[in-house]
Amino acid sequence: MAKNPDLDDFRVPFFNDGKKLKSFDLSSIDPAAKPFSTGSKDSDRARLAEIGAQLDDLQERLHAQRHRRVLLVLQGMDTSGKDGTVRAVFHDVDPLGLRIVPFRAPSEREAAHDFLWRVHAQAPMAGEFAIFNRSHYEDVLVPRVMKQIDDDECERRYRHIREFESLLADTGTTIVKCFLHISKDTQRERLQARIDDPTKHWKFDVSDLDARKLWDDYQRAYAAALGSTSTEYAPWYIIPGDSKTHRNVMVAELLLRTLQGMKLEFPPAKESLKGIKVE
Amino acid sequence: MAKNPDLDDFRVPFFNDGKKLKSFDLSSIDPAAKPFSTGSKDSDRARLAEIGAQLDDLQERLHAQRHRRVLLVLQGMDTSGKDGTVRAVFHDVDPLGLRIVPFRAPSEREAAHDFLWRVHAQAPMAGEFAIFNRSHYEDVLVPRVMKQIDDDECERRYRHIREFESLLADTGTTIVKCFLHISKDTQRERLQARIDDPTKHWKFDVSDLDARKLWDDYQRAYAAALGSTSTEYAPWYIIPGDSKTHRNVMVAELLLRTLQGMKLEFPPAKESLKGIKVE
Repeated sequence: MAKNPDLDDFRVPFFNDGKKLKSFDLSSIDPAAKPFSTGSKDSDRARLAEIGAQLDDLQERLHAQRHRRVLLVLQGMDTSGKDGTVRAVFHDVDPLGLRIVPFRAPSEREAAHDFLWRVHAQAPMAGEFAIFNRSHYEDVLVPRVMKQIDDDECERRYRHIREFESLLADTGTTIVKCFLHISKDTQRERLQARIDDPTKHWKFDVSDLDARKLWDDYQRAYAAALGSTSTEYAPWYIIPGDSKTHRNVMVAELLLRTLQGMKLEFPPAKESLKGIKVE
Repeated sequence: MAKNPDLDDFRVPFFNDGKKLKSFDLSSIDPAAKPFSTGSKDSDRARLAEIGAQLDDLQERLHAQRHRRVLLVLQGMDTSGKDGTVRAVFHDVDPLGLRIVPFRAPSEREAAHDFLWRVHAQAPMAGEFAIFNRSHYEDVLVPRVMKQIDDDECERRYRHIREFESLLADTGTTIVKCFLHISKDTQRERLQARIDDPTKHWKFDVSDLDARKLWDDYQRAYAAALGSTSTEYAPWYIIPGDSKTHRNVMVAELLLRTLQGMKLEFPPAKESLKGIKVE
């Protein structure tokens, strides 16, 4: 474990517009690594609480300003911990300033539009912090693996995604994208734990195991999507996620740095309120 | 303080359909009362954490079933603590199962529809717990006080509200409505505290003080709205709110009783998953 890990070492290199496609080598980052761990699970939880209080303060400023917007995109294989990340990282952040948007399989009406239509409708507004739990990236993963779209269509979609995210960024949205990176072994353990606990059965269907059989195909689809859509205005970060506490701390550190970089201040005091005594 | 306070003592009597209008006497409940307090602020916070864990479990069952829906409506004068209640009561509830909907002044497009149009669009879906931070009740308060609607129109709106809530209830939504009840003195203190802290100025405008000048008119408008729209399927509760910790505990107790009454169980285990070993 490096003493001062650098978040940028886990950032997917930016896509070069001259290219049609670029794949990121996921095997270059160990899902079991814990570079941002503070030593133990307990100290990680303490660090998370510390960051949580800072995120809460920054989010209040964002909300008070009603000017900038923030979008966090969470992607990852089944059981990679998207839900758990949201719950842990935002535990101490005021829920009134957050909007969590889960994307499921598109409805008939949604599917009758272009694939970014329903996503655009959920973009954060001024002062809002939106979290996409799955996202438009599903549309370059599932159809890719299922061979419903060919290389050309896939590259076109990557381009549309880059351009869409560029629009959001240019109009005031700070975008951070996290790929929760787990090993195939970790997924096996977590799926097995769900199967062994009947109160967790509602979380999935036996057909979910089919996606696991296509693990390598999905990893390849992710590698291409991450490499082809990481940009300066909407970078992808790889979050080693076999350790849940590490995953939470690392996502929190990333958000902390991101929000700190936005120079969020409370709006100036209102002169009209100065010295008023309420009757 | 009664040893075993009864939530039903704080429920607004149900509206009798034979009547046109019914007013609830708000002065019959002391905003400074703390019937659900456990003795001290610290013990109230401990009780809140205890209930929070139970609410989290019940909310998970609600979410797992994807069948019933829950709607909490929060209303109250400025500084009555709507935001604070949401934050405190749901602190330990998984944010993924909640949807907090703030209603502000209607947009031009919203105002071009009937007053329940934008509200209906935000109704909770199966498995969801929605919290309305302000609501369709604003439409029988502000316009009433501003004399933009007459008695007849006001009574028509109460009826439309009762019928709308009856539709939601009949189709699977459990509705609870809370009026956060504070004294005029408490509001003065809280407004003054905001004025004295420049980082809170963004929360309001000097024109907000105009509503305070109409305090009695607003209390009368609330009295009529509460009395005319409390029903068996969508009851109003008066929450004494001068004490923040009391307010939080009482709302939490009310939600706990409500969710417990719904007999929420996890869906049955799936036979198809039984004995499966993940490979």
